[in-house]
Amino acid sequence: MEAIEEGDRVLFITQKGRKYLLEVRRGRRFHSSEGYIDLEQVMGMPYGSRIKTNTGSVWVAAYPLIIDQVLNFPRITQIVYPKDLGYIVLMSGIRSGSRVVEGGTGAAVLTTILAYYVAPTGKVYSYDVVEDHLRNAEKQLEKVGLRDFVELKHGDLTKQIEERDIDAVILDIPTPWLAVANAKNALRDGGVLVSLSPTIEQVIETVEALKNEGFADVITVEILMRTLRVKRGMTRPEHLMHAHTAYITTARKAYREGEG
Amino acid sequence: MEAIEEGDRVLFITQKGRKYLLEVRRGRRFHSSEGYIDLEQVMGMPYGSRIKTNTGSVWVAAYPLIIDQVLNFPRITQIVYPKDLGYIVLMSGIRSGSRVVEGGTGAAVLTTILAYYVAPTGKVYSYDVVEDHLRNAEKQLEKVGLRDFVELKHGDLTKQIEERDIDAVILDIPTPWLAVANAKNALRDGGVLVSLSPTIEQVIETVEALKNEGFADVITVEILMRTLRVKRGMTRPEHLMHAHTAYITTARKAYREGEG
Amino acid sequence: MEAIEEGDRVLFITQKGRKYLLEVRRGRRFHSSEGYIDLEQVMGMPYGSRIKTNTGSVWVAAYPLIIDQVLNFPRITQIVYPKDLGYIVLMSGIRSGSRVVEGGTGAAVLTTILAYYVAPTGKVYSYDVVEDHLRNAEKQLEKVGLRDFVELKHGDLTKQIEERDIDAVILDIPTPWLAVANAKNALRDGGVLVSLSPTIEQVIETVEALKNEGFADVITVEILMRTLRVKRGMTRPEHLMHAHTAYITTARKAYREGEG
Amino acid sequence: MEAIEEGDRVLFITQKGRKYLLEVRRGRRFHSSEGYIDLEQVMGMPYGSRIKTNTGSVWVAAYPLIIDQVLNFPRITQIVYPKDLGYIVLMSGIRSGSRVVEGGTGAAVLTTILAYYVAPTGKVYSYDVVEDHLRNAEKQLEKVGLRDFVELKHGDLTKQIEERDIDAVILDIPTPWLAVANAKNALRDGGVLVSLSPTIEQVIETVEALKNEGFADVITVEILMRTLRVKRGMTRPEHLMHAHTAYITTARKAYREGEG
Repeated sequence: MEAIEEGDRVLFITQKGRKYLLEVRRGRRFHSSEGYIDLEQVMGMPYGSRIKTNTGSVWVAAYPLIIDQVLNFPRITQIVYPKDLGYIVLMSGIRSGSRVVEGGTGAAVLTTILAYYVAPTGKVYSYDVVEDHLRNAEKQLEKVGLRDFVELKHGDLTKQIEERDIDAVILDIPTPWLAVANAKNALRDGGVLVSLSPTIEQVIETVEALKNEGFADVITVEILMRTLRVKRGMTRPEHLMHAHTAYITTARKAYREGEG
Repeated sequence: MEAIEEGDRVLFITQKGRKYLLEVRRGRRFHSSEGYIDLEQVMGMPYGSRIKTNTGSVWVAAYPLIIDQVLNFPRITQIVYPKDLGYIVLMSGIRSGSRVVEGGTGAAVLTTILAYYVAPTGKVYSYDVVEDHLRNAEKQLEKVGLRDFVELKHGDLTKQIEERDIDAVILDIPTPWLAVANAKNALRDGGVLVSLSPTIEQVIETVEALKNEGFADVITVEILMRTLRVKRGMTRPEHLMHAHTAYITTARKAYREGEG
Repeated sequence: MEAIEEGDRVLFITQKGRKYLLEVRRGRRFHSSEGYIDLEQVMGMPYGSRIKTNTGSVWVAAYPLIIDQVLNFPRITQIVYPKDLGYIVLMSGIRSGSRVVEGGTGAAVLTTILAYYVAPTGKVYSYDVVEDHLRNAEKQLEKVGLRDFVELKHGDLTKQIEERDIDAVILDIPTPWLAVANAKNALRDGGVLVSLSPTIEQVIETVEALKNEGFADVITVEILMRTLRVKRGMTRPEHLMHAHTAYITTARKAYREGEG
Repeated sequence: MEAIEEGDRVLFITQKGRKYLLEVRRGRRFHSSEGYIDLEQVMGMPYGSRIKTNTGSVWVAAYPLIIDQVLNFPRITQIVYPKDLGYIVLMSGIRSGSRVVEGGTGAAVLTTILAYYVAPTGKVYSYDVVEDHLRNAEKQLEKVGLRDFVELKHGDLTKQIEERDIDAVILDIPTPWLAVANAKNALRDGGVLVSLSPTIEQVIETVEALKNEGFADVITVEILMRTLRVKRGMTRPEHLMHAHTAYITTARKAYREGEG
């Protein structure tokens, strides 16, 4: 990897552990409660270099991973969390070349992660009923260089899914149960449906709809993540924990007896 | 997707929820406590079809995802669990084209998942000190068609890592702290180290080694997964839970002040 | 405390951590996979003494606490777990002198714990519709010396609660919502209702009934307990965990506006 | 229970769920973001009555349980949480008549709960090295009417425990392992030691000290509590959770082989 250049987006990790994702521009100064840096300080340095603010705070100029990028997106809707994103990617079997239908686009966090994994040969078809969400998604996807792998669509998965032979359908909508039949039609044989819902009642409705449509291996989980504060002599779990974001239901397209 | 053919590996999901990963062969009969099936029954059927055993139990002939494949591997060592695998893939930034060093190979569960995501243009360099593990890995990787994306190496990450400009190093060894300096040399600027350890003492040693080597953003988590038994009127979390597998520590290569 | 005498019930904790609650009788021999002991070996010894089985396994002759006693009861119904029992005792405000209504009696685990805390001046009124449960409860309560503090009643809390000015009502029945109005009449001003239910649907019904009856401070929790395996250099949480037993809802008797 | 009188302490639960523990005084007005009440409004009403603030917010005048009282204490040190308090009370076997040694007194939350359960015939001997903590404890205990059941002692459990034949010793101090031998001497045969520690290193030291002194049944747990937001159609666990307060280690006094 080459040195940091003008125009690069750099993740600055401060001494106190705050993270700032900033574009490197000559003449730009960034102020924080831990002092300021001039962004041109890092030009020519390798990623991972340590620099000092004017007040002596030591920061790392880190290379931003895709997860850093999405966590920096404007949170225009409820976002999907890292603990859930990894599980979704893994259990849906999504990888390079996969064709995925997703909706709603929302803050485009999940959209971007899906695009990252299906690239460079796959495609994400991302639906939303709110045009503002699509416009925001377009902007964010361009910023992270994944615009080519997503088709943004103004539409409602509970009304229609146009695609066919899809590898996975990911539902992050208020009434996922109404999109189950459409998802079945869109999925290839062997395809996977994933549904995210914050409430138990949504899960119950969705699981029932999935079973009625013949889906198999219907499993609902909740992923919890505990952070450990590690320091010799003072090691303990963090006091607070994000204890709930969403239930994740996964299911495989299958045919009812006699069907298919 | 075409119909099921002779030689395909099919995941049979029984009415009681058991899963059997079987190769379809003419003349082969599979016996279970829910009756038997003749494997040729499913030839010509689409994936997702439902069939009946001789005793009337209804099974689904499902398409096996990569996660189904690895969970079916012989468990010659402690395996990494789905809840942890997804998080590792996501937080390491591994994707199509990535070059990853991993060790120990162990039961090849993580190796296979990494190979699945770096394919078709990346590579996993997987080290193990036990030659039997490497032989088993070779067999399993061939079975799932991912052999080309892994270089199996007889070696010890605490002694030497030969590769350079690596995107991520994944440590699943008893003394990860002894491999931290080697990992730093192997990683590209911006590269990520992930370490898995079952015990807290291993975590403490590893986190200290990472900080001494200048690594930034050192974070240790534990992922817990609760399964929800969903049935209208009877919905509740499952009674038992895999409450601990391993702590996962992630860190980014960074330079000490003045270094790099 | 005096030495162990004939007739005492002793909790033997084996070297491997198994626990046996046994009555000390001259001439009685107890066999286990870790060898046998003659129960008279411990007569005259202080509680906490260590003895050896014939095969050299070292056991502790421990004094049985009330929690050891109840965990040794025959499990004729689903039992309430220690993690939940402590919370119930604390949040209901039950102590020496309290008057408590409880049902169903079930395996008498909760009944016994309640009796232990209300003694010597309070009373537990324990209802069950199954006479066998009451007979078993009588036997267990006598064995632990708490029979005097419990009135066992053949009855159904959803039909009638005869007592008035009760400090707490504890519901461990399939349809707690049907007992809420009766509980309100039975409770004193300031009294607490506690309801245990394994499923979410039961909780939803019960919480609605409580709010309709005017109950205040209605709170539903789930208590999880993780055991840590502590051994220097090998410390980690236990792999398996009892992840769900029951949801616990607590509420305080209150009057609707204009009522009371 | 009689009506609310002047001088009573009443727990006001507001419409938004806030709780205020207030002493009822004629002429006293209490202001909040949900309007004000005149405290004499509730005089003569039964506990559990609903009243309105000047802005129409409906509050409940609830009877304060002991847990409400302690959660209202000034938090001069880290407090022990309800989820942990219940478990400690249960597992230590503490009840009416028990004699308990506790230290440090700290904010007197645990002291008060212990006093509540040992009353009216038992005693808590509570040690602290900070005289301010003892003075505060005295004040709080008097306020809740439990002063007679606690002997507050200026002292350090790691130096000396004067009492003998104690039912339980509860350690909530930074170096519990240094108090283990003293605790053993203080405990009766069959007595229970409970130790609370926020960090894993403290637990490891303490467990080792306990085993060296011959203690049996040494068990370390962590209690987690999830709150469920229950509302038909919108039921889900709360987003945030107090994921860690302290590890709780319990052990029973026992003799080493040949000792006792």
